[in-house]
Amino acid sequence: MSHIQSESLTMDNMPAYALSLGKAAKQSSAVLAKTSTSHKNDALLAIADSLAKNKNDILSANGKDMKQAEANKLDSAMLDRLKLSVRGFEQMLQGLEQIAELTDPIGQITDLNLQPSGIQVGKMRVPLGVVAIIYESRPNVTIDAAALCLKSGNACILRGGSEAFHTIAAIGACITEGLEKVALPASAVQIVKSTDRAMVTELIQMSDYVDIVVPRGGKGLIELIEKEARVDVIRHLDGICHVYIDKDADAEKALMISVNSKTHRYGVCNAAETLLIHGGLAVQVLPDIVRALEKEEVELRGCEQTLALMPHLRQATEQDWYTEYLAPVLSIKIVENLEEAIEHINYYGSGHTDVIVTENLMNTRRFLSEVDSSSVMVNTSTRFADGFEYGLGAEIGISTNKIHVRGPVGLEGLTSQKWIVLGDGHIRS
Amino acid sequence: MSHIQSESLTMDNMPAYALSLGKAAKQSSAVLAKTSTSHKNDALLAIADSLAKNKNDILSANGKDMKQAEANKLDSAMLDRLKLSVRGFEQMLQGLEQIAELTDPIGQITDLNLQPSGIQVGKMRVPLGVVAIIYESRPNVTIDAAALCLKSGNACILRGGSEAFHTIAAIGACITEGLEKVALPASAVQIVKSTDRAMVTELIQMSDYVDIVVPRGGKGLIELIEKEARVDVIRHLDGICHVYIDKDADAEKALMISVNSKTHRYGVCNAAETLLIHGGLAVQVLPDIVRALEKEEVELRGCEQTLALMPHLRQATEQDWYTEYLAPVLSIKIVENLEEAIEHINYYGSGHTDVIVTENLMNTRRFLSEVDSSSVMVNTSTRFADGFEYGLGAEIGISTNKIHVRGPVGLEGLTSQKWIVLGDGHIRS
Repeated sequence: MSHIQSESLTMDNMPAYALSLGKAAKQSSAVLAKTSTSHKNDALLAIADSLAKNKNDILSANGKDMKQAEANKLDSAMLDRLKLSVRGFEQMLQGLEQIAELTDPIGQITDLNLQPSGIQVGKMRVPLGVVAIIYESRPNVTIDAAALCLKSGNACILRGGSEAFHTIAAIGACITEGLEKVALPASAVQIVKSTDRAMVTELIQMSDYVDIVVPRGGKGLIELIEKEARVDVIRHLDGICHVYIDKDADAEKALMISVNSKTHRYGVCNAAETLLIHGGLAVQVLPDIVRALEKEEVELRGCEQTLALMPHLRQATEQDWYTEYLAPVLSIKIVENLEEAIEHINYYGSGHTDVIVTENLMNTRRFLSEVDSSSVMVNTSTRFADGFEYGLGAEIGISTNKIHVRGPVGLEGLTSQKWIVLGDGHIRS
Repeated sequence: MSHIQSESLTMDNMPAYALSLGKAAKQSSAVLAKTSTSHKNDALLAIADSLAKNKNDILSANGKDMKQAEANKLDSAMLDRLKLSVRGFEQMLQGLEQIAELTDPIGQITDLNLQPSGIQVGKMRVPLGVVAIIYESRPNVTIDAAALCLKSGNACILRGGSEAFHTIAAIGACITEGLEKVALPASAVQIVKSTDRAMVTELIQMSDYVDIVVPRGGKGLIELIEKEARVDVIRHLDGICHVYIDKDADAEKALMISVNSKTHRYGVCNAAETLLIHGGLAVQVLPDIVRALEKEEVELRGCEQTLALMPHLRQATEQDWYTEYLAPVLSIKIVENLEEAIEHINYYGSGHTDVIVTENLMNTRRFLSEVDSSSVMVNTSTRFADGFEYGLGAEIGISTNKIHVRGPVGLEGLTSQKWIVLGDGHIRS
């Protein structure tokens, strides 16, 4: 695809360009599906080598993007995501090495059982085929996504944000070099050389050539993709995570978990946004929690009952229960019992990650089975909802879908299982 | 919903009716998700009792539908599907009993492992929520679908074909009676009391209330649903299944499997539509296969090389390789080697079910790993691609999707896994 340059792309030839990317990806996906584990690992390490060799070029390409972004007066959060620090660069290399060390899920055969007819029926894990990743300004997603797709035997098409254009192009050149060095098709990982929004629409509607779309970015991007996609999408929209402090909670754990879930990092999807407290324990634990959070300069918004105990707090509105603040703000609601907590979570939550703090086994069982979220936790911080913490080695994103894959998505989420049937001339009578 | 009568439904109140069904289903799905296995089994058996008690009413309702269908001059295949015979009726009862005996997948916890941080991370199997099943004239789908959804803890909305209106209504009344007898909400299984096509559109776009759509029926119905749905769809479009006779095939097995895969039943998705034969074996095996199939009055269409050996056959066109005949017709192609066979299957096939006949282990391994279909088989008839034969106990359909679930879909395909995390005050540092 390298002969198609960004400069020559216009709205008119976008469909043709998308189609050429799709066809090339489909072809290389057939090659990757049968590539051995060691060959895939060699590719990952060759890409790491090429990145290391071209470190200065990549960092200076990033400098160019940063300069442009500052000139365009992008906000500081955006600049923060765009910036590729030396430490961030080293993490990309480590990520490649770590993914090379993960167990290859492809080809794994499970549940191979004899059936009454005499046939053996089992399942074999296989790649999905072609994965399109649409992301915003964080350039390191390029390597994370490419590495996870490669290791799971999928070809990928990467479409990053225009702000990171030069950084992504420099990283992309290293990926191509690495693939070519180990004689894998360069089209196994393709970088879209157009920042036109129309290309996104083309990619996510190409159901003959793209098997799954993974959007990484803000809610606006993801809603747009969900609306327009004709290909299945692995995504999460919101992370409205709850910590529920049960009547039988340990006060010390309740304090630590509430504070850690809210304040460990603010701009992340697995931070807590709402604290629910059982009415029978509120008088005992709420003052300490409020004090600790206010010390961290978290703005607190409470329900009426919360305000009766803590009159200096701002009153929460209905809208607060629906809000992912991604900021040092927390809403607090006192609930009558476990049922009310579960109902609140299932009604206002986003199905991402929710925690109960309790020492009560029955309540643990009920919370685990009745809260309809991708991660349901007991006595831990919501911040553990993460592919590394779950032992997946790496993650391509977090899914709040109910089908295919929920929660942190690692290698297995990029695969599927087909049935295999072994017989010896068996026919149906 | 019973107060909304079919007579009073017009295009205008369709959205309101769909919404009322969706909301009621969502509510009862929360109840079903926490209903015990024995309670769900009691419901299945109570429904069977109610059906048995109302056998005559149901069969006479079916008689009414048949009479109407004959008056409307529906074709014989349609009448055949619509007809509920006494044997078909007994099979519905047996199906309920069999599903009651299946292991309940809900609540199963797997892969619960300690992580380096000290948290335990595992997966819990949970229902999807609300399943909408859109089917055509076969009235027994009502019971199969309702039973599988109930057992897997899902609420369902059933929309059958207008031809079967009276039969489905009579069966639906028994389902309601059975649910009420065991004190489960009647809205756990709702029958759409409108045959207006607009209701289908409403149902499959109600993503706030419906978690998954399962269409059962002809290609036209399924294509329409795929195009319009805003909810994930479990479906298969075509069953273009292949039998590949490898160079190292046993001639006797090749003959038996070819004939059984084509002739055991013609109108089913897992019948073979194309026979691929390795050039090195064609002279030896093709004449016997042709003779056997012609004895069964199967029309054969061959590639040029096939015609060189069997000049009396009709020539296959490019279109033949894409065609699901669902009839006593088979296309035959001689291929040069295993690679060509795999390429042909992945290019022209529908990703349903494909078979290699061979005694060669290397070729078996390659075929199993490289054919990108939901079922890949060795030395068996394609006709084994079936939920009962795979040990699922029952199936709600066959999926050629690549995500979530592939091949025959039983109870597990109607579930999802959420992550559960157990800690003891763990926070992230």
